[in-house]
Amino acid sequence: MNILIAIDSFKGSLTSVEAGEAAAAGIRAASPDAEIEVVPLADGGEGTVDALVRATGGQSIRTQVTGPLGNPVDAEYGILGDGTTAVIEIAEACGLPLVPESQRNPLTTTSYGVGKLILDAVSHGADSLIVGLGGSATNDAGVGMLQALGCRFLDETGEEVPRGGAALGAIRSVDISGLPPAIKHLDIQVACDVNNPLYGEQGAAHIYGPQKGATPEMVTKLDVGLRNFAEVVKAGLGKDVQAIPGAGAAGGLGAAFVGFLNAGLRSGIELILDAIGLEEKVRQADYVITGEGRMDAQSSMGKAAMGVAALANKHGVPVIALAGSVTKDAAQLNDKGVTAYFSILQEPISLEEAVRPEIARRNMETAAEQVFRLIRAVKPRE
Amino acid sequence: MNILIAIDSFKGSLTSVEAGEAAAAGIRAASPDAEIEVVPLADGGEGTVDALVRATGGQSIRTQVTGPLGNPVDAEYGILGDGTTAVIEIAEACGLPLVPESQRNPLTTTSYGVGKLILDAVSHGADSLIVGLGGSATNDAGVGMLQALGCRFLDETGEEVPRGGAALGAIRSVDISGLPPAIKHLDIQVACDVNNPLYGEQGAAHIYGPQKGATPEMVTKLDVGLRNFAEVVKAGLGKDVQAIPGAGAAGGLGAAFVGFLNAGLRSGIELILDAIGLEEKVRQADYVITGEGRMDAQSSMGKAAMGVAALANKHGVPVIALAGSVTKDAAQLNDKGVTAYFSILQEPISLEEAVRPEIARRNMETAAEQVFRLIRAVKPRE
Repeated sequence: MNILIAIDSFKGSLTSVEAGEAAAAGIRAASPDAEIEVVPLADGGEGTVDALVRATGGQSIRTQVTGPLGNPVDAEYGILGDGTTAVIEIAEACGLPLVPESQRNPLTTTSYGVGKLILDAVSHGADSLIVGLGGSATNDAGVGMLQALGCRFLDETGEEVPRGGAALGAIRSVDISGLPPAIKHLDIQVACDVNNPLYGEQGAAHIYGPQKGATPEMVTKLDVGLRNFAEVVKAGLGKDVQAIPGAGAAGGLGAAFVGFLNAGLRSGIELILDAIGLEEKVRQADYVITGEGRMDAQSSMGKAAMGVAALANKHGVPVIALAGSVTKDAAQLNDKGVTAYFSILQEPISLEEAVRPEIARRNMETAAEQVFRLIRAVKPRE
Repeated sequence: MNILIAIDSFKGSLTSVEAGEAAAAGIRAASPDAEIEVVPLADGGEGTVDALVRATGGQSIRTQVTGPLGNPVDAEYGILGDGTTAVIEIAEACGLPLVPESQRNPLTTTSYGVGKLILDAVSHGADSLIVGLGGSATNDAGVGMLQALGCRFLDETGEEVPRGGAALGAIRSVDISGLPPAIKHLDIQVACDVNNPLYGEQGAAHIYGPQKGATPEMVTKLDVGLRNFAEVVKAGLGKDVQAIPGAGAAGGLGAAFVGFLNAGLRSGIELILDAIGLEEKVRQADYVITGEGRMDAQSSMGKAAMGVAALANKHGVPVIALAGSVTKDAAQLNDKGVTAYFSILQEPISLEEAVRPEIARRNMETAAEQVFRLIRAVKPRE
């Protein structure tokens, strides 16, 4: 019996790998002869580098880059098992956690370090790049990143504009001739699960600016800047970045990746599942185990566990979801391809208790064991 | 697919039938073509009459008998579907709930009404009797019941002793010639899950007297009386009731049933499972569903759900336990024959919330549905 375990993290309780290993232990107790593979899951957000590195037997690389405030920060990225695909999370170089709350100001924060991270990856032999957007402290349309990579953004006097979102409105022309060939030929895929355009009411500044520290006045200024950036890019490069769904992700980094680096934006989980070759693993499995901390209606909208379920469903492999909790609307999980779902809870318990790692681990083990005890006992239908 | 559901009551939440019907609804949602039978469970305690009447398609009969305090009380008993087996719970005629706390005194309470209940059943055509002991307010060694049936218990002056435990010490001889033939030929089986002897440190008075209102002085007097009763019975009828495990059940009613009415004492759940023909139903099932409110180490010690599991195990039928909660030591349930067990809980929740009938019902439905969705998806092993 081949069993593939790909469980999303139980946020605040177990990592994807911890949840998976606990399920594996339970399954082994029920079926000592089962062949079990635990694959770490991620959805393009936090934990993506770690999950992909582990899943492919790759390596993590730690380097130092320019942080969102201009000072150096430590940043980690991964090279996958193939040795040529790098995976970065932009938050490592320009993430909100890198900026103390009192200093959050997207007029000044820069994505410059993201470019440095990419250069470092290329210097390590990467010819493909997977990018996790999300969690940025910036609203600079990725201009900082592009500057680090060799692009120039000039104002009306022909001077290079300074870093930070405040300068977007001053850009009058772009010069991409400085992009190194290795960067131009990079195959970049960006994990992006938002559809925001670059500017406007649903754009980066209006939707995500406030949580990065922007006041209403800053939001207006940033939005005007983003619009100007889009117009200059359209005039100079012939690319309409405003219209790309997801251009507004990560303070406009989406637009920069697509407009300047020919990246493709894809659903995070699809991209990750592809990168770890999950479909092939699913095809070879007799059972797939997935799950997450809390399965609810939202789970049906493209999250990691549902991505696993969709693949299993495609190949007719039963997929069992083991969740910390399943809400009343969980019944639709069955319609979306989950063969059966179970809460791992064993007793009435508070949420605080339930998420304690040792309790969650034991419950996961118990639930997985009982599921496989049941499976082993099922007789072929007549 | 034939599915037999026999779930014990979820005390304070769902009756056995309610739990079973909820599970059935869930299974039907997963397997609309399943043949499902819901059998009410009981263990010889409260709910036994109801469970047996329902399980066998019998009828309930309401009558009036002498209560433990001598005043009339309403009492219900059942005639099973065969029309000739009656089932009574002695608590209906002499139960503790019939005595206000301030009047609890086993020196005076009598089991007289139990005898009247038996006579009523016989008058309705019963030739077999199933008796649920437990919950009695009495400590009269069943003398009251036997008096109602026609036995005489005489003191040293040859006078009949009065009712109540206080009179046990005065008995010098017994006269069973007044027992009607129908009573003598009654086939009586008593559900009894305690092993207490009639008297002594582990006897009826010492162990159960205090909870019936006996002071330490009363306990001593009652114990002396029970010993005297045993000695008189041994001398007069040649029966050593003291030595019978369970003689001390229900204030000595155990001794009366065995010593005077040739009853057999059996484990409550075995007796009930026999009476409802559960073994045959199990044999014909593809899956058996059992469960109870809380499955723990105690569940492994002869309770209803474990009785069902044992039968299923005997016939190689997978048995799935669905419980309100399963405690840490529940793993031993697997060793005792439970194929797989699941808590029906779906989310972190307090016990108070979890036992709310509408919540317990919905959780049971969900859990049962998911179990059968899983079962349907299992492919034959290679």
